[in-house]
Amino acid sequence: MFVTFEGIDGSGKSTQARLLAERLDDVVLTREPGGSPGAEEIRKLLLTGDPDRWTAETEILLFTAARRDHLERTILPALTAGKTVISDRFADSTRVYQGATRGNLREIVDQLHKLMIGREPDLTFVIDMDPETALNRGLARESGEDRFEDFGLGFQETLRHGFLSLAHSEDRCVLIDGNRDVAAVAADVAARFAARS
Amino acid sequence: MFVTFEGIDGSGKSTQARLLAERLDDVVLTREPGGSPGAEEIRKLLLTGDPDRWTAETEILLFTAARRDHLERTILPALTAGKTVISDRFADSTRVYQGATRGNLREIVDQLHKLMIGREPDLTFVIDMDPETALNRGLARESGEDRFEDFGLGFQETLRHGFLSLAHSEDRCVLIDGNRDVAAVAADVAARFAARS
Repeated sequence: MFVTFEGIDGSGKSTQARLLAERLDDVVLTREPGGSPGAEEIRKLLLTGDPDRWTAETEILLFTAARRDHLERTILPALTAGKTVISDRFADSTRVYQGATRGNLREIVDQLHKLMIGREPDLTFVIDMDPETALNRGLARESGEDRFEDFGLGFQETLRHGFLSLAHSEDRCVLIDGNRDVAAVAADVAARFAARS
Repeated sequence: MFVTFEGIDGSGKSTQARLLAERLDDVVLTREPGGSPGAEEIRKLLLTGDPDRWTAETEILLFTAARRDHLERTILPALTAGKTVISDRFADSTRVYQGATRGNLREIVDQLHKLMIGREPDLTFVIDMDPETALNRGLARESGEDRFEDFGLGFQETLRHGFLSLAHSEDRCVLIDGNRDVAAVAADVAARFAARS
């Protein structure tokens, strides 16, 4: 089973992905952009530097290159070996970040996904969170990977609406209220996972 | 006018691109992969490391990302300013290297080009050269960018046929015999350029 976690930075999705993985056997916990040695190198190009370092079109191509490597080298081999794969972000992030914002490139994102990736998760948890709280959390981490946070609060609000819209349009998506303490959110995720698997 | 030089590594195309640029005013000499700060960083990922570092599909995406950046940040602004742009390699290299070899991905290369690049050169010089001589020249440079040369002579021969086939199928292409001394090839290129511009 291929499970993904989606949401804006600071929504708690990485923590929740880890907590779900800890409950399971035979699981591979991975992330995007990255998740394979080659894709992690592309990650560095994407998440550091000035906000206008890449145009949205170039960005989509780099995310798709990283995703193809991640899929071929990490996700598909693990699924073939019968493992559960949990990924912190996947194609939905590109749909929302590059597709629903910065020039409305959703059509290009969809065509590129169809041509070069094709695969969708079996189950996607969309963690919803107040954008202002999430942005402060994300920046407080000082990860050095703040290129998207540097677009500001208006951008985070647009992203939130993109993720909500996605959660309501796809059957594989489960919307989770992230504005609660970590344990409550984790219990909710675990119950929804059990119901779907 | 947008002019490109194509051919296998060691064919002399970089030298010929430079010599043509030296004859002209208001010219921008550039290269692929690279030609803009972002694309040069992607170049490092593509030309160093093991031959199997990337699959052909991931490679196509990385080349296209670098090309989009190069086009937006270097080529189109120079053409808009009325300059001649001379590029050492462009989309034809992806067609031949990734399209005509390693799994016959030409259909994917063409779709990706149409979706994300669109632009073709006005004039393309294809420098033809004996593959064994070219390979020895390429490796002798010890550039540290030998990932493609490391695929070996059989691969170089396949590439040569790919470039010849391309030169015969596109009106914008002029085939140049590179098996002559540098000055003779440069004079030929200059005469053909004058006839076309």
